[in-house]
Amino acid sequence: MNTNEMSLKVHEEKRGKVEVVSKVSVKNREDLSIAYTPGVAEPCRQIRANKEDVYRYTAKGNLVAVVSDGTAVLGLGDIGPEAAMPVMEGKSILFKEFAGVDAFPICLDTKDVDEIVKTVKYLAPTFGGINLEDISAPRCFEIERRLKEELDIPVFHDDQHGTAIVVSAGLHNALKLVKKDIENTKIVINGAGSAGISICKLLLIQGAENIVMCDRKGSLIEGAEWMNEAQREICKVTNREKEDGNLEEIIKGKDVFIGVSGPNVLNSAMVETMNDDAIIFAMANPTPEIMPEEAKKGGARVIATGRSDFPNQINNVLVFPGIFRGALDVRATDITDEMKVAAAKAIASIITDEELNEEYIIPGAFDKRVAETVAQEVARVARESGIARI
Amino acid sequence: MNTNEMSLKVHEEKRGKVEVVSKVSVKNREDLSIAYTPGVAEPCRQIRANKEDVYRYTAKGNLVAVVSDGTAVLGLGDIGPEAAMPVMEGKSILFKEFAGVDAFPICLDTKDVDEIVKTVKYLAPTFGGINLEDISAPRCFEIERRLKEELDIPVFHDDQHGTAIVVSAGLHNALKLVKKDIENTKIVINGAGSAGISICKLLLIQGAENIVMCDRKGSLIEGAEWMNEAQREICKVTNREKEDGNLEEIIKGKDVFIGVSGPNVLNSAMVETMNDDAIIFAMANPTPEIMPEEAKKGGARVIATGRSDFPNQINNVLVFPGIFRGALDVRATDITDEMKVAAAKAIASIITDEELNEEYIIPGAFDKRVAETVAQEVARVARESGIARI
Repeated sequence: MNTNEMSLKVHEEKRGKVEVVSKVSVKNREDLSIAYTPGVAEPCRQIRANKEDVYRYTAKGNLVAVVSDGTAVLGLGDIGPEAAMPVMEGKSILFKEFAGVDAFPICLDTKDVDEIVKTVKYLAPTFGGINLEDISAPRCFEIERRLKEELDIPVFHDDQHGTAIVVSAGLHNALKLVKKDIENTKIVINGAGSAGISICKLLLIQGAENIVMCDRKGSLIEGAEWMNEAQREICKVTNREKEDGNLEEIIKGKDVFIGVSGPNVLNSAMVETMNDDAIIFAMANPTPEIMPEEAKKGGARVIATGRSDFPNQINNVLVFPGIFRGALDVRATDITDEMKVAAAKAIASIITDEELNEEYIIPGAFDKRVAETVAQEVARVARESGIARI
Repeated sequence: MNTNEMSLKVHEEKRGKVEVVSKVSVKNREDLSIAYTPGVAEPCRQIRANKEDVYRYTAKGNLVAVVSDGTAVLGLGDIGPEAAMPVMEGKSILFKEFAGVDAFPICLDTKDVDEIVKTVKYLAPTFGGINLEDISAPRCFEIERRLKEELDIPVFHDDQHGTAIVVSAGLHNALKLVKKDIENTKIVINGAGSAGISICKLLLIQGAENIVMCDRKGSLIEGAEWMNEAQREICKVTNREKEDGNLEEIIKGKDVFIGVSGPNVLNSAMVETMNDDAIIFAMANPTPEIMPEEAKKGGARVIATGRSDFPNQINNVLVFPGIFRGALDVRATDITDEMKVAAAKAIASIITDEELNEEYIIPGAFDKRVAETVAQEVARVARESGIARI
């Protein structure tokens, strides 16, 4: 039985993956009088008197909604809210497994930006945080921005920021290995969708000064007619040399290739035109932009992919459980850029200088130390920046 | 430590009562490839091709949203969505404990009817059923009516129908005991809010022909200026003799008193004016319309309350777990009046003729047979009436 068949079998046998269970016993009258009527009225009264007590007496403080409208699911695209459920359930159980966060899948039957924003706001009393997932660009930008403005709980679009953080972590260690600093590193990011732009922004925050973004139609360059609003914005702070051309032309003389695009857009001949000690992050799934063997043939020194069957897997699961754990633990009102950078550094720090090598720049997905370390650092930074409520 | 103190302690120690857990293992790479990427794409594809497969491969078919806006919580009134959380969590864990239903609390930060209707519609892809809870009248009527029309999953406002069903069950057995039939029984219902009106409607469906409803301002009678729309409607099919007066006047010569009103509105002198073998359901919480001892003094033969420390507790927990279990099991598109009547009869049927007595007209809250029997009967009736999808 292959993975797909096995997956169908497991999903059907278990009828999905999430289950809601009780943390208290309700086996007899006394239990019932404490967990439900009449005793339950007392925590209700306390919360009515002091709204913050909702964190004290309810599950809110550990509950995250995994919210999607099913428009940009995995490599499948706009498959609708019902078909997105297996992914949101999967995400939810990873939150629990990796960081003890109670996450619940919410698949919405609307694609309208205003309606999604309103719905999530209405749901907010129940949740301690909102993880947006698999919502297509450019709607995902506005939805996240507005929710961050309007809600006092953390809102995080994992497809953008989770990816950006784990790429930052890997790049941090890769650059350390090849002894280059980020300020002087020439980076090309291929794929100018929400993940690519978010990676770009987070690298800029960390000091990168030479980034050129590419998409199917070539490099993002001021004045190019085909660009959308997000792409036009990012042009203002990237591609300073006004490099114009397709990926094959742009990649020449670069130190780093970061791909969040499609299969096989890169070949060994193109890698050969890069600088020495080239770093390749080929994250298209399931078929990367270039296979590791092919990249090596072109002279790449460090190669990472999204796949678990090659070394250096760039996997968001290293990020979202720990970053929400940290934010929830201190009741942060937001997940800020500082917290994202702290998360990236925390992930990178797991690997010691002695351990660091070409095939080990990023911890494995099941490294139990990661979520804990990320949570601690994120909580610390949230406290320092004054957005922690406890 | 009293019940309130104990309840606070338990709620604080556990941080609320619901937890979201995984039904599948995610301990290693292989697990991850089945529960999440890449394997999860296969159930997504199947559901995209055939939307009904969402019941096959996800948790939807066993998930119920317990939805409230916090406007009519227990005896506390409009306490807001945060303060309503302990109740919705409590309800959720009872669904699980009594019928294996995965229920999740959703406390909404809006009181607007249109917005609540839209929000629940947007949430519907995730859930197999919607339990509306503690939403104030008259908004609860419109919200339920519109959601029932627009959704293809069961929608059930427990405060109305759960109460109506369990009262029907108790009354069925009480009338059997005193050898009266419902057609010739004279009934007064005190409290013309959503629960009272719903009880009235369900009794009418079951053949009751002589019901007078009362509220603080007296009997509901055609032409009374103070009545709201729901009350005006119910007048058309009740109080045929045009009895005008307050409860003290109306209760004379009645066989049954059903109270969903407030403490101590009834006394033994008033009960004495009722017919022989009077039946009293005094369900105000925590202090009933009349204490059982006082009712007995007035000559009442059967007395039920909402409290667990007296015989004959009228408790919705006998209804909502089983009725949703039955509806979910056959993927019913609705919970119909026929299903409600079936649920009432199923609850009543648990007590045999030999067992039936003045202090045992309704099964105990922890009688494990109830939910199962209710579920079977509800499922059977749903199938017979053609609204079951499997």
